[in-house]
Amino acid sequence: ACESDTDVSRHPNLLVAAQDVAAMKRADGVSAPLFADALQQAQTEVDAAMAQALDIPLPKDPGGGYSHERHKKNALLLFQAGQLYTIKGDPRYANWAAEVLVRYADLYPTLGLHPEHKHQAPGKLFWQILNDAWWLTYVIQAYDMVLPAMTEDQRAQVESRLLRPYADFLSKESASTFNKVHNHGTWAAAAVGMTGLVLADDYYVNIALKGLDQSGKAGFLKQMDQLFSPDGYYTEGPYYQRYALLPFVMFARALDRHKPSMGIFEYRDRILIKAIYAAIQLTDGHYFLPLNDAIKDKGLDTIEMVYGVSIAYAKTQDKNLLAIARKQNQVVLTGDGLRVAVDLARSADVQFPFSSQLFRDGPNGDEGAVALLRAGDTTVVFKAASQGMGHGHFDRLGWQLYSQGAEIVSDYGAARYLNVEPKQGGIYLPENTSWAKQTVAHNALVVDRTSHFDGSVKRASKSSPELLQFVRGEQWQLVSAREANAYKGVVMTRTQILLEHPLLSGPLVLDLLAAESDEQHVYELPVHFQGQLMTFSGELAVNTDALKPLGTQNGYQHLWHKATLAPAAHRPLQASWLSNNRFYTLTAVAPADQTLLVAELGANDPEFNLRRDQALIARAETSGGVQFVQLLEQHGHYDGRAETVSQPRSAIARAAIEQHPGAQVLTLDTVSGQTLRIVLADDRAPERQHALSLGEQRVQWQGPVHLLVNH
Amino acid sequence: ACESDTDVSRHPNLLVAAQDVAAMKRADGVSAPLFADALQQAQTEVDAAMAQALDIPLPKDPGGGYSHERHKKNALLLFQAGQLYTIKGDPRYANWAAEVLVRYADLYPTLGLHPEHKHQAPGKLFWQILNDAWWLTYVIQAYDMVLPAMTEDQRAQVESRLLRPYADFLSKESASTFNKVHNHGTWAAAAVGMTGLVLADDYYVNIALKGLDQSGKAGFLKQMDQLFSPDGYYTEGPYYQRYALLPFVMFARALDRHKPSMGIFEYRDRILIKAIYAAIQLTDGHYFLPLNDAIKDKGLDTIEMVYGVSIAYAKTQDKNLLAIARKQNQVVLTGDGLRVAVDLARSADVQFPFSSQLFRDGPNGDEGAVALLRAGDTTVVFKAASQGMGHGHFDRLGWQLYSQGAEIVSDYGAARYLNVEPKQGGIYLPENTSWAKQTVAHNALVVDRTSHFDGSVKRASKSSPELLQFVRGEQWQLVSAREANAYKGVVMTRTQILLEHPLLSGPLVLDLLAAESDEQHVYELPVHFQGQLMTFSGELAVNTDALKPLGTQNGYQHLWHKATLAPAAHRPLQASWLSNNRFYTLTAVAPADQTLLVAELGANDPEFNLRRDQALIARAETSGGVQFVQLLEQHGHYDGRAETVSQPRSAIARAAIEQHPGAQVLTLDTVSGQTLRIVLADDRAPERQHALSLGEQRVQWQGPVHLLVNH
Ligand SMILES: [Zn+2]
Ligand SMILES: [Zn+2]
Repeated sequence: ACESDTDVSRHPNLLVAAQDVAAMKRADGVSAPLFADALQQAQTEVDAAMAQALDIPLPKDPGGGYSHERHKKNALLLFQAGQLYTIKGDPRYANWAAEVLVRYADLYPTLGLHPEHKHQAPGKLFWQILNDAWWLTYVIQAYDMVLPAMTEDQRAQVESRLLRPYADFLSKESASTFNKVHNHGTWAAAAVGMTGLVLADDYYVNIALKGLDQSGKAGFLKQMDQLFSPDGYYTEGPYYQRYALLPFVMFARALDRHKPSMGIFEYRDRILIKAIYAAIQLTDGHYFLPLNDAIKDKGLDTIEMVYGVSIAYAKTQDKNLLAIARKQNQVVLTGDGLRVAVDLARSADVQFPFSSQLFRDGPNGDEGAVALLRAGDTTVVFKAASQGMGHGHFDRLGWQLYSQGAEIVSDYGAARYLNVEPKQGGIYLPENTSWAKQTVAHNALVVDRTSHFDGSVKRASKSSPELLQFVRGEQWQLVSAREANAYKGVVMTRTQILLEHPLLSGPLVLDLLAAESDEQHVYELPVHFQGQLMTFSGELAVNTDALKPLGTQNGYQHLWHKATLAPAAHRPLQASWLSNNRFYTLTAVAPADQTLLVAELGANDPEFNLRRDQALIARAETSGGVQFVQLLEQHGHYDGRAETVSQPRSAIARAAIEQHPGAQVLTLDTVSGQTLRIVLADDRAPERQHALSLGEQRVQWQGPVHLLVNH
Repeated sequence: ACESDTDVSRHPNLLVAAQDVAAMKRADGVSAPLFADALQQAQTEVDAAMAQALDIPLPKDPGGGYSHERHKKNALLLFQAGQLYTIKGDPRYANWAAEVLVRYADLYPTLGLHPEHKHQAPGKLFWQILNDAWWLTYVIQAYDMVLPAMTEDQRAQVESRLLRPYADFLSKESASTFNKVHNHGTWAAAAVGMTGLVLADDYYVNIALKGLDQSGKAGFLKQMDQLFSPDGYYTEGPYYQRYALLPFVMFARALDRHKPSMGIFEYRDRILIKAIYAAIQLTDGHYFLPLNDAIKDKGLDTIEMVYGVSIAYAKTQDKNLLAIARKQNQVVLTGDGLRVAVDLARSADVQFPFSSQLFRDGPNGDEGAVALLRAGDTTVVFKAASQGMGHGHFDRLGWQLYSQGAEIVSDYGAARYLNVEPKQGGIYLPENTSWAKQTVAHNALVVDRTSHFDGSVKRASKSSPELLQFVRGEQWQLVSAREANAYKGVVMTRTQILLEHPLLSGPLVLDLLAAESDEQHVYELPVHFQGQLMTFSGELAVNTDALKPLGTQNGYQHLWHKATLAPAAHRPLQASWLSNNRFYTLTAVAPADQTLLVAELGANDPEFNLRRDQALIARAETSGGVQFVQLLEQHGHYDGRAETVSQPRSAIARAAIEQHPGAQVLTLDTVSGQTLRIVLADDRAPERQHALSLGEQRVQWQGPVHLLVNH
């Protein structure tokens, strides 16, 4: 009994730690309103559950089904009951949790593999072992909090019949998942490792950190080495980065408490902190940028980010994080969560510095990159990253534009209604492959109406784009990358420049995409836009009384061909639309003989699975390569309330691009009679000095971009 | 000079009144934050204008053009300068305003009719006299405020060369507009009448009140008699009601000050106060319900409603109005506005009681009605009103559904991009006639693919639907109306019931539409829905690789035919969609052989003028009439953040309707195995007692609707 009491005094010590308990007990609605709200909500939920008989069903249903959802909910209720016991000291919560844990300890030894398991690694409580691992990360925390109130007999039962066999199942008995350097492996490592910390069993901790053979070739540390780039980017993209983060930060925070000398948050130049900040930056200010398979309704207020912010704040005391906590309007019931709540209540005005940043991809940072160019309320997302594994899309050198926090030039994301059972059980839909992953579904170059790497993940995973430049000057930011492998015999180089200039009504995107090839090809460059089409410049031929799909495969079969815009003499090819009360114009400067197709998504969609998004597709057929030069202009304002409209038309009357010695010069004549020249040096070195004669004028400048105004 | 001083002491006395000035001077950011904000904003705008030379261009451009917008802006600046002078006492504002007024007095006598005038009644400063009248309502208020600071000479100039000739132009010289019992006449009456009040010239006041011949056959009082129904409904619909209200409430408030004995706000049983409340109720909680020509981005925060609320609050002291002011987040710089700002700052929690209401149409309330049925966050709008003049749509017995403040079953509104110059100058587009006004653009019965009254405003204006019932019980609200003239030989009767019952996951709409006819007809009943289609019950045939328009005229030429849903044995015809994180299902109960067409707007739209809205169109071809019975169910919840989804499928497994002696019985079998019966008595009298045998069961009830549950 003495030994047991000694053990008890160490608890809780995972995300909730004994030294925080006194402060958590004192927290009130004035000093820490969000903490008090969370406590109240937990109490409401747990009290409601305690008032009824808790169902612990036999595992039966796949994801979304009753038994699946019930076991998930039970884990969260146990976790909340533990928090309520810790904070409020009411033994009813501990007794209830102890009873539920004992019931699970009765059930667990009777279970074989889940009846619905498929090709994925199977679990016992759930159809996928990933869910089993998730369950234990919460339940071990619950146990850590309530064990001081449990009898020795109860503890023995729960440890020997539930926690240890559960951890063994996740590790030894599921070796291949456990040893995976993959997000599924991280969940298993976190579950097993935290179990080891609570049971004071170093074996579990060691295999969690270093893999089953404890060699370090697998396990949590290897995952920290491999799964994030040096800039904290997770190769599957921001949507999965959010999900992958949670086991990392939970287990790391627990290690930080139990083994502070490890300095886990210092590991690999503070990689976990970088990953949390990267996840915040890789949003439109709220929603995660949809790179690869991504569902667009996940944002900074998801529970993973609530944990991430609380833990990052504990380790950095960076007040800017409080701005994210304010958006979240929620804290977790831990000491870290309390510190966020208290400091937020004291901070009147906090802003998170969303900024232009480069996120290199790959463990060594040499597998391409995602670049963010930000100016005012405008964000350009340029994706020159690696394939991102099975959830990757064939979107080399694709881009997106956000303005006022809304999608303007958009990516479809994933074709999936997560957990919506009537939509094929909520899994990825067939259209995720036939549309969402295809190149034409992206703002990326399509050659001969095929997708990059012919849609082969295996081929695509062998190489990455090459980042060429990421530089900025006073009025411009530039990113450039090259992709030589997506199409055999075609080398694409894309440069995107975000320009700010008083002649422009808002930040302007200049997009230059060159494809070098010796062969004849059809090149198509889509701009998937959000909004209501307004006007066109050029000869518009609309398919007014019949629609046909643009093609038969590689995503083209899903696009209705609504219109074709062809060049008209002396006028640039332009399409304008209205979105979110702002006007946007796409201007195609070159090549001379290109057309612009107008398309709407939805053909060959027999179950109405696709959203009805729209695209403008610049098209040119050439031999010997091509250069697309496009401008994306933001202009004017529509105010329906005040009935005022400003500048609904593009400011660009004429646009031309010329190659001069050592530089390309894009000349924009505005409707107000001024001329803006954008000079782009062939040599992009930031410090290089350049000079050029433009007619009478001798122009000198430093760096890759120079802006000139003539009246 | 003495006489002039006496005059001066009476000013200002329109919306800003001398007795309020002391309080307005004292108002600060603590006691009246919204007032302080408005004052600061006015100051910023006027200071900016005063820092530059003010342009008073020759009238030249039509609506939206430079001279048009400039003169509008100048009137508002004068008005604000007057307010700033009154409140802050700084003579610079008065001097500037005086100077601008004198410049207008120099210009005005030189003007003929506006060069851009069209078939509309022409103005001088503007292309339409309506705009000229608007201008004077603001400028006369400005003059009222600054005249105490003007020299006698300035006043003489402004009165003799600007105000009087301007008022004469609006009245004597534009007799037909001035004498119109129409909103354009109200603007003229308000402008001329307020000018009379300021100049103490009873002639202007009298003709404004009683028409040019002062007989009372025209003028403001007649307009108050004729333009609103006894329930305060304006026949053109809520969008125009908002606009029409402003001259009424401005002039009335001025009369209230100058001639309190008139009791103008008591006139016709407080008709103006009723009209303000009606405008508030006729919203989805924010936006005006789109009945007839309406642009959907106008809501309760428009300036007209800011005035309306301040004046209604002054006359009623109804604290509920403060909830609207809170939404508006803006007050006007008048004594009334100040009182709203002060009381709002003191009121922590105010709610406006949006409620179920009937708004009878027509001056005598006998020209049909618009009914609102509200339950929780659900609003059913049922339109059985008269044609609403030239802006009316052919939508007899049409309906709309709002849920959580968003459109679910929607009306297209007007096809117009107001003031967006590239969209045909911002006027009503051709598609307003070819689509938006047509019956198929509405949730209304179409017979033989023609529009009501063959689209003739003249024919439609001759008769109104007949309101049959508007009654409610504990669990239901019912509205019913009949339309016998829209189609020759077809009498339509529609009954809509909004039901609340524990078996239902949200308020349910039961829609019964009977058409009596002796002939063979094609009947089509559209439901224009907002959202993403999810699932169907029935045999779905999708036009996957080619789309054609549904028809060639009467709006059908604009609808792409995307799919046809045909009945499958033993299953109701159903379509479900997801909107705003809630699921909706339309269930078609009868007739047995109907189909459901799925359509998308956008065919034959060569300028991309139309939004790409969607519709489900129930279709039946019969001889001898038809009855459509439809259910609109709200169910479940999609939470993308928490990854939880509840009840994505309809709760209705089977549905059948039977005629019993004296009552129709709709039997709904739920997926959970229960049966809900909705009994609808043929005799709808609210107090009537009914009895019916249903199998073994003897059912007795009172009133038109009765709900029964069997297990
Ligand atoms: Zn994608
Ligand atoms: Zn309409």
